[in-house]
Amino acid sequence: MRDAFHEQLDSVFDDLADISNRVRIAVHGATTALLSGDAEIAERVISQDAAIDLARERVEDNAFSLLSLQQPVAGDLRVLVAALRMVSELERMGDLSVHVAKIARLRVPNVAVPEDVRPTVSRMADVAESMVGRLARIIVDRDVEDAIAFAEADEEMDRLRRSTFAELLDGDWPHGVEAAVDIALLGRYYERIADHAVSVANRIVYIVTGETPHSHESVAEVAVDL
Amino acid sequence: MRDAFHEQLDSVFDDLADISNRVRIAVHGATTALLSGDAEIAERVISQDAAIDLARERVEDNAFSLLSLQQPVAGDLRVLVAALRMVSELERMGDLSVHVAKIARLRVPNVAVPEDVRPTVSRMADVAESMVGRLARIIVDRDVEDAIAFAEADEEMDRLRRSTFAELLDGDWPHGVEAAVDIALLGRYYERIADHAVSVANRIVYIVTGETPHSHESVAEVAVDL
Repeated sequence: MRDAFHEQLDSVFDDLADISNRVRIAVHGATTALLSGDAEIAERVISQDAAIDLARERVEDNAFSLLSLQQPVAGDLRVLVAALRMVSELERMGDLSVHVAKIARLRVPNVAVPEDVRPTVSRMADVAESMVGRLARIIVDRDVEDAIAFAEADEEMDRLRRSTFAELLDGDWPHGVEAAVDIALLGRYYERIADHAVSVANRIVYIVTGETPHSHESVAEVAVDL
Repeated sequence: MRDAFHEQLDSVFDDLADISNRVRIAVHGATTALLSGDAEIAERVISQDAAIDLARERVEDNAFSLLSLQQPVAGDLRVLVAALRMVSELERMGDLSVHVAKIARLRVPNVAVPEDVRPTVSRMADVAESMVGRLARIIVDRDVEDAIAFAEADEEMDRLRRSTFAELLDGDWPHGVEAAVDIALLGRYYERIADHAVSVANRIVYIVTGETPHSHESVAEVAVDL
């Protein structure tokens, strides 16, 4: 049987998994709003972000009182500090979904993403959502194998971001400056969601193995190096 | 006389101040490279980021061993956890300076910022650099008054980001898609540097007063709401 400390620690990780489910719903809603120009869905993503913020506060309070009352050392301390970091990253992924939803809302009744970039943006969104969708299980089951496999998805995100830049900058962009700015920022937001997902997954690997997976150069840097 | 714990805690805060000085130099260098198209300065900012990453690791290791060996509670624990968060944010500000430097490098021998947007971008950079420049003293002296005054600089950053969007999207942008994408991303990077600076300043206010200053809506959200 688990002692009280480890039971409370498990419950912190259940809360992290719950937040990552909420973030997945936010990413999915933001993308749906973006690709369909649906203001109502965008509003829902924006207003539901407060629940993610609240859930983060709860995790922080619980982790903090565990730190303070149980004074864990060594491995347990590392796990708890990692939890505090993961919850910040998950919350930030929620904020980034809100940014996507706000671009969607801003262009209603139009759709921010022109038809010919839709495949690339839509694929970026799918990759991001799928990464977030895997996090809950990785967090609860400490699934190191799947966490390490995130590197592959992250590389696809790199390639997709480079594609958006290629489409924007090939000298033949027909959709004007507003759409170009939207696509550049949307690419950045999805890429950052993926970056944070990789970081959360890496923290699970670290908790279990004591090693951080070697991270290749940040997506943003590769993309901007185009 | 301070006891050993508080002496080590002071040294963690001295390291945080040292990192914020390095970040200020990075922001300054990135802006200089950006506005002059100087590849050498851009390279320097990019290569010096490794030193910021190392300094962050040192702070994390020290904070972690303080947590583990001294098992602080209540106020001391909150201060140490806040230090761990501040160092992540400072490191991130270094990364964002690298992003600015990489846009500068990408456009050499040209300058990424067209002449007529230069005043706005240059002012954004000044506001960001000045905020970062104030952090070292705020961190070491626990200068709550100056930390609270960051709200003003942050509001100016909001207005400047809105100005860049207005310039980009007034239907009369003569500089093409590449420059528009650069300006949109640069605006985002400087804004994020300012956001993180506000967050670090707010943590100092929290450490000293136990209260977090009311933060107005995130800059990004206001800007995207244009």
